[in-house]
Amino acid sequence: MPEPAPRADRPADRLRDRPSGTRYGNRPTMKDVAARAGVGLKTVSRVVNGEPGVTPDTERRVQEAIEALGFRRNDSARVLRKGRTASIGLILEDLADPFYGPLSRAVEEVARAHGALLINGSSAEDPDREQELALALCARRVDGLVVIPAGDDHRYLEPEIRAGVATVFVDRPAGRIDADVVLSDNFGGARDGVAHLIAHGHRRIGFIGDMPRIHTAAERLRGYRAAMEDAGISVADSWMSLGVTDPERVRRAAEAMLTGPEPVTAVFTGNNRVTVTVIRVLAGLPRPVALVGFDDIELADLLQPGVTVVAQDAAALGRTATERLFRQLDGTLLGPERIELPTRLVTRGSGELPPSV
Amino acid sequence: MPEPAPRADRPADRLRDRPSGTRYGNRPTMKDVAARAGVGLKTVSRVVNGEPGVTPDTERRVQEAIEALGFRRNDSARVLRKGRTASIGLILEDLADPFYGPLSRAVEEVARAHGALLINGSSAEDPDREQELALALCARRVDGLVVIPAGDDHRYLEPEIRAGVATVFVDRPAGRIDADVVLSDNFGGARDGVAHLIAHGHRRIGFIGDMPRIHTAAERLRGYRAAMEDAGISVADSWMSLGVTDPERVRRAAEAMLTGPEPVTAVFTGNNRVTVTVIRVLAGLPRPVALVGFDDIELADLLQPGVTVVAQDAAALGRTATERLFRQLDGTLLGPERIELPTRLVTRGSGELPPSV
Repeated sequence: MPEPAPRADRPADRLRDRPSGTRYGNRPTMKDVAARAGVGLKTVSRVVNGEPGVTPDTERRVQEAIEALGFRRNDSARVLRKGRTASIGLILEDLADPFYGPLSRAVEEVARAHGALLINGSSAEDPDREQELALALCARRVDGLVVIPAGDDHRYLEPEIRAGVATVFVDRPAGRIDADVVLSDNFGGARDGVAHLIAHGHRRIGFIGDMPRIHTAAERLRGYRAAMEDAGISVADSWMSLGVTDPERVRRAAEAMLTGPEPVTAVFTGNNRVTVTVIRVLAGLPRPVALVGFDDIELADLLQPGVTVVAQDAAALGRTATERLFRQLDGTLLGPERIELPTRLVTRGSGELPPSV
Repeated sequence: MPEPAPRADRPADRLRDRPSGTRYGNRPTMKDVAARAGVGLKTVSRVVNGEPGVTPDTERRVQEAIEALGFRRNDSARVLRKGRTASIGLILEDLADPFYGPLSRAVEEVARAHGALLINGSSAEDPDREQELALALCARRVDGLVVIPAGDDHRYLEPEIRAGVATVFVDRPAGRIDADVVLSDNFGGARDGVAHLIAHGHRRIGFIGDMPRIHTAAERLRGYRAAMEDAGISVADSWMSLGVTDPERVRRAAEAMLTGPEPVTAVFTGNNRVTVTVIRVLAGLPRPVALVGFDDIELADLLQPGVTVVAQDAAALGRTATERLFRQLDGTLLGPERIELPTRLVTRGSGELPPSV
């Protein structure tokens, strides 16, 4: 699978209310040292790490800037070097969702490359459990947290972040705090997937997604609406269904929009759990119905027809987030950013079926 | 999916060298109290927990036995009641293997039902990392560990177990210590799956499995050999291939046994990772080749033909192990046991194809 390169978002997409100059824990960073000493970040890094390649004069200027600013690597980063087993925590929302398998493994691989253990836990999509677990991991002295949030208010983490716990949110944004966030382009991916169905002649297209309070579900619905609007198609309420991904709920939603006076000729599914159920519903129909799913699924290429998907790179999400976490611990980041990774349309047959009604 | 009931193994299958009377951490248990007081376990439990239904005379006898033996609930169990967030650890061997998804979620659900947080980690199939992670979790004060072991020597856990950390091994047995173990019937499941292929007329049957040092891989190979021997079929070396589950290795193994002077007409695959690759190889062949896979896989029923599997109940493995862990913490178990859960043959088409060569 080709790895999409991380793409820093347009400035307008960054969290708007971030006070200018916000930094992790409000401590001086290597960047501050570099600015004061009038040298590059790499030079500061060399001095701090005792690496060669710095002239004595430059080293003196850097040391003066370090003393003037009171710069020190943060506690966690120092701990990483002091012999105690370093560790980072990962909070998922569902241990059984295969989407998180490659993401978790990528987080683990980056952690291991930095000599840190990974400790996981699951919120089971419950904001209270997310908070309980995050604070329990902090109490157990993790050096950083990668969080797939269930909740939308993360101010409870502010004391931990001030105390030096590195924090990156992935898959979904942080709520009410300014933090590093690594997301897929959920809006653009869904828009492209629906536009693909429209390009194959569909106008009555259904959308079945996860609960609308979940960021990814809302963004994918927004992408669906945008594609329909771009094509001048007005969307019937009966074509959209958001809710839990429980197979029974999804099955009923699909059956409802596939019958009635204005049945859909194509379905766009909002995540892999929904896709798997809709594949089963469509397999039982006498007429072909087109399908594009958000998220790739194992064996999708071997079904008949193969399942066309908007694929996220789950491993790249985990890797990008965790690399950023360790850069926070190194003190080499300016401040929180929002990074968006592209999705990829994979055509395999189901999304290229023409309308059959 | 029907839930197979846990089935305690035949005594001969228990670890042979367990000294008689071995108990968790060698502390007196509720069972000892019950024996000394001449009452049932449930009565002791009622007294210890202050529940009604015990006559004053019986209560006095139980209290005397408790004092005489120095019985106390172990530290971890008391901690569970004292307000600190209780937690248990789960050590997997691969975060990205979908088999562990339902297992992990079941562990989490039982933990939650007992008011405990679950903290996960992965050994990435490396015995050193397993040990590092297990000890790191113990250092972080988990009350118990559910371990899917990568290594075969777990004596490093003895001090932790003596200190009161509950420990249950699942999916694979513990090595060189006497511990609770919850396994699937890997031998019987594989034997039944291969016998199913033989019953459909196959004699040249290939086996592709995981590395032979892994308990489950060795047991499933043993089941394959037993079924072949039962049918009076002598197995050619070229029909068996064990090694890493990397798709390239599996693909080459499958292609080798499907060609040559004695090509196999059916393949038995030793786990879900192998099955997925072999499905792809078989899909590219001009002639049908029968397939039975160990482990169920998502969408197996929608492929053509549907994939016949020997299904483990991953959730039941996780649930049974974790319930046993909390019974250790309660002090209500006699000593380590080995519990084996049955597998289930699910026929869907691929295992019922006749030999085509």
